[in-house]
Order: sequence, then structure tokens, then C-alpha cells
Amino acid sequence: MHNICAKLHNMSKNLTPRSEDYSKWYNELVVRADMAENSAVRGCMVIKPYGFAIWEKMQAELDRMFKETGHQNAYFPLFIPKSLFEAEEKNAEGFAKECAVVTHYRLENDPDHEGKLRVDPEAKLEEELVVRPTSEAIIWNTYRNWIQSYRDLPILVNQWANVVRWEMRTRLFLRTAEFLWQEGHTAHATEKEAMDEAELMNNVYAKFAEGFMAMPVIKGLKTPSERFAGAEETFCIEALMQDGKALQAGTSHFLGQNFAKAFDVKFTNRDGKQDYVWATSWGVSTRLMGALIMTHGDDRGLVLPPNLAPIQVVIVPIYRSEEQLKAISEVVDGLQSELRASGLTVKYDDRDTHRPGAKFAQYELQGIPIRLAIGPKDMENGTVELARRDNLTKEIVPLNEVSARIEGLLTEIQETMFQSALDFREEHTTEVDDFQTFKNVLENKTGFISAHWDGTSETEDKIKELTKATIRCIPLYEVGQPGKCVYSGKPSERRVLFARAY
Amino acid sequence: MHNICAKLHNMSKNLTPRSEDYSKWYNELVVRADMAENSAVRGCMVIKPYGFAIWEKMQAELDRMFKETGHQNAYFPLFIPKSLFEAEEKNAEGFAKECAVVTHYRLENDPDHEGKLRVDPEAKLEEELVVRPTSEAIIWNTYRNWIQSYRDLPILVNQWANVVRWEMRTRLFLRTAEFLWQEGHTAHATEKEAMDEAELMNNVYAKFAEGFMAMPVIKGLKTPSERFAGAEETFCIEALMQDGKALQAGTSHFLGQNFAKAFDVKFTNRDGKQDYVWATSWGVSTRLMGALIMTHGDDRGLVLPPNLAPIQVVIVPIYRSEEQLKAISEVVDGLQSELRASGLTVKYDDRDTHRPGAKFAQYELQGIPIRLAIGPKDMENGTVELARRDNLTKEIVPLNEVSARIEGLLTEIQETMFQSALDFREEHTTEVDDFQTFKNVLENKTGFISAHWDGTSETEDKIKELTKATIRCIPLYEVGQPGKCVYSGKPSERRVLFARAY
Repeated sequence: MHNICAKLHNMSKNLTPRSEDYSKWYNELVVRADMAENSAVRGCMVIKPYGFAIWEKMQAELDRMFKETGHQNAYFPLFIPKSLFEAEEKNAEGFAKECAVVTHYRLENDPDHEGKLRVDPEAKLEEELVVRPTSEAIIWNTYRNWIQSYRDLPILVNQWANVVRWEMRTRLFLRTAEFLWQEGHTAHATEKEAMDEAELMNNVYAKFAEGFMAMPVIKGLKTPSERFAGAEETFCIEALMQDGKALQAGTSHFLGQNFAKAFDVKFTNRDGKQDYVWATSWGVSTRLMGALIMTHGDDRGLVLPPNLAPIQVVIVPIYRSEEQLKAISEVVDGLQSELRASGLTVKYDDRDTHRPGAKFAQYELQGIPIRLAIGPKDMENGTVELARRDNLTKEIVPLNEVSARIEGLLTEIQETMFQSALDFREEHTTEVDDFQTFKNVLENKTGFISAHWDGTSETEDKIKELTKATIRCIPLYEVGQPGKCVYSGKPSERRVLFARAY
Repeated sequence: MHNICAKLHNMSKNLTPRSEDYSKWYNELVVRADMAENSAVRGCMVIKPYGFAIWEKMQAELDRMFKETGHQNAYFPLFIPKSLFEAEEKNAEGFAKECAVVTHYRLENDPDHEGKLRVDPEAKLEEELVVRPTSEAIIWNTYRNWIQSYRDLPILVNQWANVVRWEMRTRLFLRTAEFLWQEGHTAHATEKEAMDEAELMNNVYAKFAEGFMAMPVIKGLKTPSERFAGAEETFCIEALMQDGKALQAGTSHFLGQNFAKAFDVKFTNRDGKQDYVWATSWGVSTRLMGALIMTHGDDRGLVLPPNLAPIQVVIVPIYRSEEQLKAISEVVDGLQSELRASGLTVKYDDRDTHRPGAKFAQYELQGIPIRLAIGPKDMENGTVELARRDNLTKEIVPLNEVSARIEGLLTEIQETMFQSALDFREEHTTEVDDFQTFKNVLENKTGFISAHWDGTSETEDKIKELTKATIRCIPLYEVGQPGKCVYSGKPSERRVLFARAY
């Protein structure tokens, strides 16, 4: 076993260490762990089977949580006619600069180039179609026909979809021209109900991030200048990555009556009077994959929380002869059934095309929470070697105890991973009261800075200009204490969280 | 109860009877059962929550079947650069006339119209992007980098995605400009393995159609002129709708080495030699929703097979007083738990905003397989009224037997629905040996015509021109007998299936 481990160390050395170049480490990891890669289309990624399997686990849990809170899925068109897109002005303005636009509906043979095609100039659309960057416009135009009275409310709808935002600088999962997401779009009879819904869904996101991704998040509100285009209030969850930069992991918007007014969506309330409908929208995307990687990954690769790992336990046989493999496989058969009966996902990798060392390295790189190895010595002793991916410890476990041990261990790993990330965040959250310290902390210690702010966009913009730090959120569920703005010295009601961010 | 039933009959009268106008019946049903509706975007539909819930059930079962046969999901870009799109010439030619094309990536304020946007002429793409009508091109361009040796094969990948084909005449679910589908794309080391895969997946589709949709299908091969653009062989499943028209419910293509050659995808085989990779692709779409409706629906609405019904059992209380409702609800509580424990999906509709008659009509329209009603008389007698949606029969069942009765009944309904559809198809499949009868049958009896064909495209085209009937497939797994072509009189190896089709 020791030779194998040595080999494994060598193989893992290929990833650039995080301390050397965090960004390079991330890019290498995503590709080498077979999660995603760049495509032939500028800024668009291919999500590979292993990456997609993790995203499917995320989808399944989120979808369950949405349904448990009364939401149903539906599907709305990919395209938005330009005249609808521009109806809600702030939203349109916010996204206009990054819209892919369909202008034609046919190709034809290129008369100048044999075997090539060109856009058929005769097939120009009367009205251009915007590829959805977000779906409020097309959905509220639809809701107009669904809503007449308070009896038709609330509408609690979600859609899983692809969206396109023509970003100039892209990175796998974190910022891509096309990405996958879910977008909830709800309609309500009262302001309070809509506001409660926006907050509820932000809490659902937080519960998912912490319980499944093992990623602690701060629940907060965005400042007016950081709000979603068209929102009156934006709830968010903010996480801290290992390089001390923040990442916005999910947002939930109270849209007031803005979209109802833009699309003329009125209803008759309980008093028989006409009123505009109140709206929310909320979304998380494949960006969460990036957050997961940067919360838990180490220099050997991905580290997956058991609750989201497509494979929770991998079993690798160590053998020299076919006979040994056969004996090991028999033992593994029973063990696999036992583990699967407990609801765990298990893979037995008996490929003869790869050596155990290569397998170990692959599963470390791909972050499988628990690896079991069984060799001839284990067979003699009735034991199994159990390796944890999160802290890289190993132990020898009697075969008849391994199943029970693993069940408890997966829970322990999930909790340990959350606690480590929480500890990291707490160590990297600094209360600061003067601007020189603010700059020093940002430059040297990094992380969240909890500081007073005078509440003006001017100060917010100035701080951003000087330090590249933005206000990530105004934390919720904390009692604020008054003080003086870290930049202007003017009175402040409470501290807010600053950070440089993804 | 009788008054309620009378009311129900009245409400159901609103659907145009199938015998009067089948097409109108279909369109009304889709909209009134809250499955889908047309959107503001020409040819694109909105899939409403109830319709989407049925699609989700289909997705879940298909996804499970794909994974059981070794496939994994992945995700590839929505856009295909024109130069990649045109690389496989037959495929490009087949889809060029119905491509939505993105030409620009930004909107700007329209200087001539305050508050309006226009396409920014400065933001023209260097190369146009085709919105995928199918993904062979972008996927095979990606596979080139995934495949070096036979050890990298097979690749068994599926994706769930939206695609766009700019159809001129659209109908909800059956033919829409944007639709949802899955597309499998596999890569193999040998011709035989690829051919076996294409056939396997066609069989998976057949199993799904028959076992879950309760829709009998004929498994067959397409004639060369009906093949997928770029395929060397197309397997298909063909179903017969109630109006005697056929519907192609799924296709699975053996693509030979066409895409490997177009995208230069080679591998080193076991003998150390370079060879082009063999390919398949296979897909089913939201069109299956249309097939489901037209296989089982009746003049009262949708009839859902229990295996795909989002709600299998609905319970409606019949009451005059709050006290009665409370007593009924207590009984229903226990019954619901019992049914859910057996894995059934149950809804208790105790809304006080709708009368029982309206509820009955809604659930008939939406095709819920079993409806239970409990009124004061049932409470006295310890009974429940059980109504089957498929054959509209009712029975009074003792409360303590209802749970066991329902379990068996759901299986029975599933089988009965399949058998009815099969009987219908058999009654509407006619062996024909002369062209006059061929035309008569097509015009008056409708359905599948089993007839001899001389194997030429000329005859196929001529028959289509004269009768609008196409060769739906050359049935597989049947022993063919030679004969004479129904049109030309020339020798024929075996009968093929003709029909008018959706």
C-alpha cells in the first residue's frame, strides 16, 4: 500500500498549489477532475458527465425544497420579443448590454462558397428576439392572462432553464455566457406576502448551501446599487471562498409591482377593487459548482460533501492475480449490497486498465468522500483500509464493522466540512473602524470586512473605486449598532459586510 | 350525488367532440386541461405546471432507463458556430431552412425612440451562431478532444435540453419552434457496437411508450428518404392516434462514421491502427405529450395512465356544513396516509371556493385515474364512491377495503388502457394489395396500411404525392413475405407500414 500512496502523491502534484496561484488551481481542477471545459463557442462551457452528476444532485435537492414550499415547475420560451424585453425599463437597461439577439430564421447555401451556408437575407425577423438573460418579461406577459382575481393568486412557479448573458470575461462555472439555473417567479395579492416569499426562498437557499454544500452563508440584503435590475429589494446569500473573496451564491428579489405595471397585470382583490399584482423572482445557477469547488477543494483536487457526492464510497481492489481479484470481488459484493441497502451510492472500480495508484489519484482529484481499499493482507486479516478525502486520514477497519462505520462517518465528514468552512470564514471576518486598516485588511488578510457605512451610493462607489471592495450585503437577523462610516465618518446605523468578490 | 353528476356532464360538454373535429378537440383539451398554451413568441409554447408535471414524470422514467443502460448526462452549448454547423453536409442541409440565428450580442438605446432598444450595429458577431436544432455538430466537435484510444470508448452521453426548429405551422406539443427533448450521443469503437446501441435505445423507447404511456408502438426502420439528416439507418417507434393518423414517437440513429469524418474524430483501435469513431444519436421530445393526449383522451378530456399521472388519486369531500367537512377530513386523513404509504400520489381537494361538481369536471378534464368522493351518506355507511377515469365506471367501496382496491385497480387501469389502444391499432391496421383499396382505406377507414413496396424512392414519393401517406416504417422483428408492390406491381421483399402522419 505504501508504494501506491507514494505514486499517488506524485500524480497529485500536477495541480498548481492554491498558495501559488489560486485562479490557476481552480481552472486546472475543473478541467482535470472532468467537471467542465471550454467549448468552441466563446464563453460557453461543456459540462462533462462528472460535473453534471454533481449539478443533478444539487437540482434534485433544490427541486424537492421548492416543491415542499408549494412551488411547481413550468417552462417558458427561450426567446423574448424585443418589445416585451424593453417593457420594464430598469430590467431592460440592466441586461441590454449583454443580450444575444436572434435576427434571422433561416440559412441558405452560400452562392460564393461551395458547401458553405450563409444567413438568408430574406429570412429576417420582423421583430428581433432576445435570448433570455432572465425571464421576468416573458413570464409577466404570460401571467397577465392567468390572473383575474385574488383567487388566482398566489402563483408559485419555478423553471429550470438555460440563460445567456454575453459576458466579456468568462470562467468555467463562475461566469459563462450560457449557464444553467432555476428561476422562481411568483405572483401575490399583497406586498407583505411577496416580501415574505422573497425572504423564504432566500432562507431555502441558505438551508441548501449550509446543509448540502456544507458552505456557510451570510443572509443579507443588497444595497440599492447592487440590487437586481428591476427589484425593490434583493435578498442574498454570500459565501467566502478560500482566497478571501466573496461569492454571491443566490439571490431572491422582491419586485414590488414593477413588472405588473410594465405588463399591466391587475387583479380584483377581496374587496372587489382592482390592484396591480406583487412579484418576486429568485435564482441559483451552475455558479454554485464554482462555489462548491472553492469552498472545499485542496491541492489534491475536489473535496465533495457527502450530501452532494454522486459517488459517496469508492472501493478499489489491490491484487496481483486473477484469483486474488476474484476473492476480493466476492467480499466486495456483500459489502456493496450492505452499503446500498443503507441508501449510499457506491462504486466498485475493478477496471484492469488502470493501476490502483492511478485510481486513488483520480478519486482524490474527484473528491469522493470515502475510499475503501482491499488487498491480500486485508483479506487475511478480515479488514478494509478506509481513507477519508476531507482530512486525508486512513484507518484499518474490520470488515464486519465497515458498513456501520461509514454511515456515521459520512455525517461526521459533512459536519466537519461545514465547520472548517465556518471557522475559515470567522477567522477571515474582521471588524474595522478606519479606512487605512480597511485597505490593509483587504490587501493582506482578505475576507469579509464588517464596517460602518453612511448609507450613500457615493461612499459605496468611492470605496469600490479605491479598493475594489463592494458591499456584499447588509446582514439580516443581527442587531445593528450605530457608529461612524469607515470612509466618510458620517453617522451609520449599522455595520455592513464588504469584500472583493467573484 | 346524482345532481352533481348531471352538472358535471354539462360542464364537460364544452370540449368539441372528437368525432366533430379532432384537431379542435386536441387544441381545446391542451389549453383547458392547463397543460400548455401559445406564447407571445411565434410558434413557442408555455408549458403550464400541470403539463410540466406530466413531462417531469416522463423525464424521470426515461432518465432512470438511460442510466440503467449505462448512460450519463452532460450539457453542451445552446449555440453552434456556423462553421461547425455546416461541417456535416447532409445534417446541415436537413436543418438549414429552419435555423434561428444569433447575429448580435448587444442592444442599445434607440436614439429615435425614447425608452426603446435597438440592436447595436457595432455588436455584430464575427461568426453567426445557430441556435441548436440538434447537437451532433457541437458534440462531435467536442468528442474529438475526448477520444484518443479504444480505452476512451464507448462514450454514452445524454443531454436534456431545449432545441429550436423554425417550423412554419406549429401546434402545441406536436410541432413547436422551441421544444424540450433529450438527445443521446454515443461514440463507439465498432460498427456493430454502434448499431446495437441504436437498436437498444429504440427498444428502451418502445418499453417506455408501452409500459408507462400505455401506448403500443411498432418498432421499425425508416426508409432512406425518411431518415434523419446525416444518419445511415434510423430506428423508430410509430404509434397510431385515435384519428387514424400515425405519430413518430421516438427515433434512434446509426450515424456510421459521418460525424467522425466531418469532425476528424479518430481513435487508436486494439490493433494499434487509427480509425474513425462510430456514432449514434437518439431522442424523444415534448411531442410525446401530444401522443399521450391523442392515444387516450376522450370527449371529456385527458385520460392519464396511472404510471405517468402526477396525481393518481384525488379525493373530493361532499358536505353541507363545516361539521360534516371536519368529520370527512378526519376519515380522509387516515386514508391518505394509507395510500401514500403504498407509494401512491394522492390529492385531497377540500377547497371551499369550488363546488364538488366543478372539481369533478376539472379532474375528469385533467385525466386523474381515480376519483374518490365521500359524502354524509358514505360517512353513515362507512363507504367511499370510487370513480375510474378510463371507463367512467363507479362503485361503492367499503372504506376499509378502498386502499387495497386502489392498488390493484391502478395496475388494471394501466393494462386496460394499453389493451384498448392496442385493440384500436389492430382494428386500424389493414393489409392491402391493390392501390384502389389503398386509397379507399386511407380515406375511409384510416390507420396503418400494411402493403408491399418495391423499395424505390420514386414509388414512395409517388404514393405520398397521390395520397399524402408516407412509409412510417419497415417493421422489425417480423418475418417478411415477398409479394408485389401495391403501386408499381414490381417485386417486393416484404410489407411495410403506410399511413398519413403527424
